[in-house]
Amino acid sequence: MAGNKGKVTIFDVAKAAGVSSSAVSYALNGKPGVSEATRAKVLRVASELGWKPNGAAQSLAESKTRRIGLILGYDPKLLSVEPYMMGLISGLGAELEEHDYSMLVRLSIGEEDERAIIEDWIATGNVDALLLTNLEIGDPRVDLLKEHPTMKALAIADASLTGGLPTLTSDDAAACGMAVQHLYELGHRNIARVAGPEELGHSYIRDAAFSEITSELGIKYRCLHADYTPEAGADATRRLLSVSPRPTAIIYDNDVMALAGESAANQLGVSVPGDLSIMSWDDSFMCTAAHPNITALNRDIVEAGRMAAALMLKLIDGEEVGVVEEPPYHLRARESTGPAPAEA
Amino acid sequence: MAGNKGKVTIFDVAKAAGVSSSAVSYALNGKPGVSEATRAKVLRVASELGWKPNGAAQSLAESKTRRIGLILGYDPKLLSVEPYMMGLISGLGAELEEHDYSMLVRLSIGEEDERAIIEDWIATGNVDALLLTNLEIGDPRVDLLKEHPTMKALAIADASLTGGLPTLTSDDAAACGMAVQHLYELGHRNIARVAGPEELGHSYIRDAAFSEITSELGIKYRCLHADYTPEAGADATRRLLSVSPRPTAIIYDNDVMALAGESAANQLGVSVPGDLSIMSWDDSFMCTAAHPNITALNRDIVEAGRMAAALMLKLIDGEEVGVVEEPPYHLRARESTGPAPAEA
Repeated sequence: MAGNKGKVTIFDVAKAAGVSSSAVSYALNGKPGVSEATRAKVLRVASELGWKPNGAAQSLAESKTRRIGLILGYDPKLLSVEPYMMGLISGLGAELEEHDYSMLVRLSIGEEDERAIIEDWIATGNVDALLLTNLEIGDPRVDLLKEHPTMKALAIADASLTGGLPTLTSDDAAACGMAVQHLYELGHRNIARVAGPEELGHSYIRDAAFSEITSELGIKYRCLHADYTPEAGADATRRLLSVSPRPTAIIYDNDVMALAGESAANQLGVSVPGDLSIMSWDDSFMCTAAHPNITALNRDIVEAGRMAAALMLKLIDGEEVGVVEEPPYHLRARESTGPAPAEA
Repeated sequence: MAGNKGKVTIFDVAKAAGVSSSAVSYALNGKPGVSEATRAKVLRVASELGWKPNGAAQSLAESKTRRIGLILGYDPKLLSVEPYMMGLISGLGAELEEHDYSMLVRLSIGEEDERAIIEDWIATGNVDALLLTNLEIGDPRVDLLKEHPTMKALAIADASLTGGLPTLTSDDAAACGMAVQHLYELGHRNIARVAGPEELGHSYIRDAAFSEITSELGIKYRCLHADYTPEAGADATRRLLSVSPRPTAIIYDNDVMALAGESAANQLGVSVPGDLSIMSWDDSFMCTAAHPNITALNRDIVEAGRMAAALMLKLIDGEEVGVVEEPPYHLRARESTGPAPAEA
């Protein structure tokens, strides 16, 4: 990592002291395994070379932990099916490494747990800043963090939901417009959507935008909320296709549900895109690996992670952040969307 | 979190001291924003209630950081396409939370970076234990950690590759046997494989096992190595299908390549499973969401993560770990495997 380059290592200390590097690590960590004479020599040489002290001692001296906090707020089984968070972690990590920062990651099962973790971080100063993701509408974490400005926090969410906290926002309403416009131009006048959980902030923003845009264009629109899993995506698809007249297009809030929805349509003998057009959100590898491959609203999640890390580092340095926009969405038209069938 | 339950929080301190919780956080973190009188009162009340001190100070006192280290050793773009690591993180996190431990996560680009991070952790004691994943054959990290037993380390890898380090191992050779047996019983005598990178430990173990088992059964076997991405999976599939006589079954080392391979076959007019059977490894949600859904070697990655966390906590407590086996693989037969075609 950039921050480690040129730093004095235990191998440098070992060489200069004429002992093994394992003797150095015993000596520096205050553990038994080396003689007192060796320990004294190692400590003297380490000090001469400017070797940096124990991480915890260093934290106290710097009053920085060089860690940012990330709470993964999902069910463990669900977390492993959702590529979004891994993309975000990849981007966060890539940027943080360039500044010799680490991520402190915790898993929370539910809102109470997550609040307890944030309170702990506020109280102990165990991280220099934290990232808030998956905001709900009226999210109590926002108030908690506004009451405790000693803890720097960045929210990834629509700015209308973050109560003035520093925010990395995305223009989801514009993306909804692009999706509907694409389908409208293909002749679709009866579209449905399989959304994420209703209480999540971005579901709420998208719900409002889809209702408004479809209403303006005189398009029939219905929506079912699901939990992002393939089972829920397939189930919602079957329900939507059972209604007569059935929708000629379905938009999914994530790729996992879109892929499962495409398979469910296939199993019902509903051909994609002949009978039904399918669109997805996020545009992970699943959209291009699927057959037919899936039209999607592409966002650069890795880049958003990089931006979030850079913004948190600014906050830690005492800079103002305000509201910053993620890179814009792009619509990637692929095989899964086509002209609306004459009569569904 | 279990560890937070019943703990004295800053809200308890605030109530007892008759001040706001934000005043408490200012006071405890030694930041300006409260009067000296308030600060003194808060510190006295906090001490009376047994509130725990700053995380770094606490680390020094306990000589534990309550963190385990995890290095994600992938390209950031690739990391986000691979569900394995997110599954592992989910399991690790779920178990660690029950013991009030966090994960310290860093991203490494290449072997040198990863070595530098491990050296830093050995030198600074920034984590109580670390997890080694994606071992390569002759992996220099194994020697580094054997030389520095002050850093507790657990490897997730075949025990033949970990040089006596504490190891969570899986019986990949047995899984290879199950895969070949399944195809053999369906009449396949010419099978191919799209494997992960050749230098990775588990590719090596599987390469050897597949060669041996197919040779024993008199099955024709060939293998191409790829990098786990959908593009590489599709490309290897097209190459394998271009050879005459073409294989009647392909086994993939991960789900992403299997899904991309199924689509590539489809696009070439090769019907699955009529002309070609397809099998995958890991069995993430993609296997059931695909159409036709994909026969796979199922492993419980979340549970493996839980086991890994529990074993690291044992190491931190000074217990011996040795070699422990992951839950066994199960073959999940689905639509993508069928009888071998008469003549390919």
